[in-house]
Amino acid sequence: MTENPEVISFAGGLPNPRYFPVQEIAQAASEVLSRPDDCGLQYGPTEGYLPLRQYIAQRYRDRMGLAVAADEILITNGSQQGLDLVGKVFIDRAEVVAVEQPAYLGALQAFSVYEPQFYTVPLLDDGVDMDHLEHLLGTRRVRLFHTVINFQNPSGITYSPPTRRRLAEALGRTETVLVEDDPYGPLRFAGEPAPSMRTWLEGQAVLLGSFSKIVAPGLRLGWVCAPRPIMDKLVIAKQASDLHSNFLCQRILYQYLMNHDLDEHIATITAAYQRQRDAMVQAIESHFPPEVTFTRPQGGMFLWATLPASLSALDLFERAAAQKVAFVPGTPFFLDNGGLHHLRLNFSNAPEDRIEEGIRRLGAIMKQMLVQKA
Amino acid sequence: MTENPEVISFAGGLPNPRYFPVQEIAQAASEVLSRPDDCGLQYGPTEGYLPLRQYIAQRYRDRMGLAVAADEILITNGSQQGLDLVGKVFIDRAEVVAVEQPAYLGALQAFSVYEPQFYTVPLLDDGVDMDHLEHLLGTRRVRLFHTVINFQNPSGITYSPPTRRRLAEALGRTETVLVEDDPYGPLRFAGEPAPSMRTWLEGQAVLLGSFSKIVAPGLRLGWVCAPRPIMDKLVIAKQASDLHSNFLCQRILYQYLMNHDLDEHIATITAAYQRQRDAMVQAIESHFPPEVTFTRPQGGMFLWATLPASLSALDLFERAAAQKVAFVPGTPFFLDNGGLHHLRLNFSNAPEDRIEEGIRRLGAIMKQMLVQKA
Repeated sequence: MTENPEVISFAGGLPNPRYFPVQEIAQAASEVLSRPDDCGLQYGPTEGYLPLRQYIAQRYRDRMGLAVAADEILITNGSQQGLDLVGKVFIDRAEVVAVEQPAYLGALQAFSVYEPQFYTVPLLDDGVDMDHLEHLLGTRRVRLFHTVINFQNPSGITYSPPTRRRLAEALGRTETVLVEDDPYGPLRFAGEPAPSMRTWLEGQAVLLGSFSKIVAPGLRLGWVCAPRPIMDKLVIAKQASDLHSNFLCQRILYQYLMNHDLDEHIATITAAYQRQRDAMVQAIESHFPPEVTFTRPQGGMFLWATLPASLSALDLFERAAAQKVAFVPGTPFFLDNGGLHHLRLNFSNAPEDRIEEGIRRLGAIMKQMLVQKA
Repeated sequence: MTENPEVISFAGGLPNPRYFPVQEIAQAASEVLSRPDDCGLQYGPTEGYLPLRQYIAQRYRDRMGLAVAADEILITNGSQQGLDLVGKVFIDRAEVVAVEQPAYLGALQAFSVYEPQFYTVPLLDDGVDMDHLEHLLGTRRVRLFHTVINFQNPSGITYSPPTRRRLAEALGRTETVLVEDDPYGPLRFAGEPAPSMRTWLEGQAVLLGSFSKIVAPGLRLGWVCAPRPIMDKLVIAKQASDLHSNFLCQRILYQYLMNHDLDEHIATITAAYQRQRDAMVQAIESHFPPEVTFTRPQGGMFLWATLPASLSALDLFERAAAQKVAFVPGTPFFLDNGGLHHLRLNFSNAPEDRIEEGIRRLGAIMKQMLVQKA
């Protein structure tokens, strides 16, 4: 359905292709491939292209004040492969893995392969429910806790600085590995950046990052940042998985990053996503019934709406499809058959006038449904 | 040690970079990236780029007479990822996986993650020892049998047609999945191609292929060919692993394949590797003591030499290092601490005069060692 150009889709999780640096990547590819003796066509190191790893480590130091060395960076096929490698290294069957509720679907898929016992911890407005998590950490041996800490997919929620500190204190008393999955962090258009969990948990925090949202997903390049004892295991798992990530694209990406200012490019994307989020928030305020609540993310690509308990997001989904509007109902993000009253709305991939029109249609259906229930 | 340009290395498994189609890839990249609306920078399908899958299926039909459809092809990060996905889907802890002895190291690494019980089956001159394998299949439930069927790494051995037929009959009586790992098959410079095991075992054969040896490994692109019931599981595992393989490079590779005749390019590579193998065989015949036996591969990149029982390949390795010659001793390819008298010699990555000189040095050391033992 989302392939049909008539459909207004809030369903996917695609970055806006309008901001892919196509010409710049073409130029970088041409430069890399003009050096026949060193053009990225031979096998490369498992850890990734060293200058690219140095670039990423430097960004952690400069932008987040984290003491990260290049040998703490492993290049992966997007952050999805980071999740897989973490699962490979850490999860034995029936071990406890804690995830947010709603959870990032890709993490559930990656970890499920290793057959953990999942525990879910609800998300509140400022991050995970720490009372709930502290209770879990006190009663079970939790191997991993996975969080999308900024502008979460699907909820749009960001952990506040106090929640981060409390999370660090709680995890610091355990041997639980924290997986800080942060593909959206650079896409902040409002509010102040908050510290990475590595600030407090250097020895037990595994950070996942990605170029998919800030350059282009087709390059399929992301990274894991982890302390050396963990990194050594991840590198062995990476070698067993696929030897190394696409070396030609690592070289092209690095050349692109040398030729251009990534932060300027990110600023262009975030300005656009801010306009798109503003258009969606304004349209929701105008068209959704007041019983519907929703998050106002300060970055990223997703907004999360909650229907009154009398309305089903699955019903809404079917009626919306008939009106050529798509979104993702909340159910796949819940492990307990919950999420029936939630919808994930992606705002990065539709122009503002289409956002307004799509939200208007959704609002009209909701109002109809409310009248029918009354 | 192999990074030192003074060293004559027979150690690696690198294709000869002299035959990377650098300009042709540059041209293909430029064409792909000149189509801003469809340039491979967005997310792609998990199964891979459909025209590339169709191209691969067509080659199976045209060149090997196999009825393969495009939806039986999954694009992977080299054939190494095919091994990982097969392990993910098929191996539960302590299940029996049968491998050749000597075995392909990458398969051992990929499968080990899933903690199988490995059984090794010796390789004879014309393929696996079928008496041994039939006994194993008759006494244990074997989940997978992994074979590098053409010009095996490390041994250079190719399965004869009668061994293939007997293998098919034996496996056809079981539910064992056959993994036919064939990165080197296209690199045949002597003898007649033999049928793929899929000829007889369509429902239980998983074929792995790679562009690493016939185009360039830095593209990190290979494929799995499997019947639909198996393919459906592999696609789910692929999605959980990294969503999809590098989409930009899939597009560039496909454009390259459209612009050029792959078979012509392969003919150039195989002609070169034949010259290099001939140089190595002639040098061995001239310089190695007659007690040393060795394989004469009809393709691929590796030759396997066996020392007399009184000589250790590890001793030879150390003495050779002092003379600036490198190779891989047999031990890592054996799971039972065997392989002490074997050496893997790669012939694809050294010019003919260096091959002659390196083999001359190795032969001189062997002769010295024999005198010292006598």
